[in-house]
Amino acid sequence: MKKAYEALKAEINRKGIKAVEDQGSFGERCYPFIHNLYEAAKEELAGCDRLSLESKVVGKSYFSFESKVARSRPINIDLFETDNDKAFDIFRKILEGKRHELTSDEITRSVYIVAMTCCAGKDVSSKGDQKTPGTIFEWLCAGIVQACLKVNPVRALQVLNLDLKGDLPTDFVFDLGAEKPKFHLPVKTSTRERIIQVWAHQRVLDGVYGVGRFLAMPIILTETKLDSKKLEVVEICLPWQWRLYQMHIAILWNVCYLDAPTSYLELDTKFPRIGVSTIGDALKKDGRLDDLLKSHRLL
Amino acid sequence: MKKAYEALKAEINRKGIKAVEDQGSFGERCYPFIHNLYEAAKEELAGCDRLSLESKVVGKSYFSFESKVARSRPINIDLFETDNDKAFDIFRKILEGKRHELTSDEITRSVYIVAMTCCAGKDVSSKGDQKTPGTIFEWLCAGIVQACLKVNPVRALQVLNLDLKGDLPTDFVFDLGAEKPKFHLPVKTSTRERIIQVWAHQRVLDGVYGVGRFLAMPIILTETKLDSKKLEVVEICLPWQWRLYQMHIAILWNVCYLDAPTSYLELDTKFPRIGVSTIGDALKKDGRLDDLLKSHRLL
Repeated sequence: MKKAYEALKAEINRKGIKAVEDQGSFGERCYPFIHNLYEAAKEELAGCDRLSLESKVVGKSYFSFESKVARSRPINIDLFETDNDKAFDIFRKILEGKRHELTSDEITRSVYIVAMTCCAGKDVSSKGDQKTPGTIFEWLCAGIVQACLKVNPVRALQVLNLDLKGDLPTDFVFDLGAEKPKFHLPVKTSTRERIIQVWAHQRVLDGVYGVGRFLAMPIILTETKLDSKKLEVVEICLPWQWRLYQMHIAILWNVCYLDAPTSYLELDTKFPRIGVSTIGDALKKDGRLDDLLKSHRLL
Repeated sequence: MKKAYEALKAEINRKGIKAVEDQGSFGERCYPFIHNLYEAAKEELAGCDRLSLESKVVGKSYFSFESKVARSRPINIDLFETDNDKAFDIFRKILEGKRHELTSDEITRSVYIVAMTCCAGKDVSSKGDQKTPGTIFEWLCAGIVQACLKVNPVRALQVLNLDLKGDLPTDFVFDLGAEKPKFHLPVKTSTRERIIQVWAHQRVLDGVYGVGRFLAMPIILTETKLDSKKLEVVEICLPWQWRLYQMHIAILWNVCYLDAPTSYLELDTKFPRIGVSTIGDALKKDGRLDDLLKSHRLL
């Protein structure tokens, strides 16, 4: 798996996370490397035992893969097991920009399976490495969103403001061009209390560039946490704090989850509203992203 | 050291981080337990080797303690070595509320030595435990500030706001009472890019309770980082981002450092200004805290 990871990293370092004209989008360009990484991760997991976990999350069941070296993060059985065989073919369609051919469920499940296979494969092969799975997940999400929006992301923005000049480092930013929406895309495997950073970064973007200029669309894998002694899975959610942040720091446009916590999905229907959805509901035909693009006559 | 830590923890759990009427401040009440912890940490370190480190921080030199189990965080030689013997006696004076008898330098050095001894003692006795040193540092700082302000801290605030009711978890908050300043006191062993959380929390406090109602006074140990392969010490500072946060998220009143980075101290004299000082300059007679208390006729 290390070899496949290094190969993908080298390809990304060679030309950055951007589409190359004759090679299509970043996702298409890196597709063979992502495929190799996915296959290598599957191989890692094939040699592992499955460990049943006690789920404290209502309506969801979880297990972990366990190698001789380490145990993986908890995996949502329903999301992971259904259509696992077809997952990569569906994922490829997303990378090819064919999201409109897929249902919300197909998108959510295929992205969950590919991302979780890569992250869990890394978990079981090297104990304590939290950075690499996070980086892989960033690459996958950048590829997906690039395939949907057909523009390259950047990771820093210029600030030119009277006597202040400099670069503002950001999460991925996808800029559709002059007079069009710009998306701010923090990608996290989980957030917990660190989510306040996303609101704070949005506030800085609002302050520097004007309110409404950037739309925040965080993509988050899951909010589960494994108690490794009790083998219990809990979901750590702070819906009350989210509402305070949305009222007092900035407005996030839409938070996308792969394994979406119910207590956050419920915020989507409360007042003041925080847009929260599965990644499938965001990217499907006539989903959240399409609604937005249509309202700007971009679709 | 574990025993001394557990004893202090038990005492804190018994009555919380608050003064008890017949026992004076939290610092005085817990003084014997803090003293035991400090002595136990010193003992841990006495059995360690000293490892020279290559400092990339201009004007500062660092070393680490190294046991058979683990290596400590980098320690500023000048701050740690000068007056090390007298450090706990001086620290005790602060806990007794006698900060006005001490110079800025005495305060900064004694707090640095006591905090760093406890943190490094924990570092070398259990590999990978970052939480316990952070907790010890929180207790020490809460004790210091309580001794200075003579009020007990709380860790959650009520939000009562039309149809929204609930608790807002916070870092330590010291409330001097009606019509008087309230201090918001995040305590961190280091911050790096996580510091944006402090500005964001201040923004929420400004939004919920009104701008200017709470004064943010973060206390931070150091911003050094050890490259454990090269044995190099660097300071990770983001002064440009701090200025954007101060302009676009909220105003922090004064950031206190024990081992203060030069690039942050310089922000104190730039425009827009961010108050940054050593803890000694904040707490000494006629220092920052006294200036503020005088302006509210509280001194």
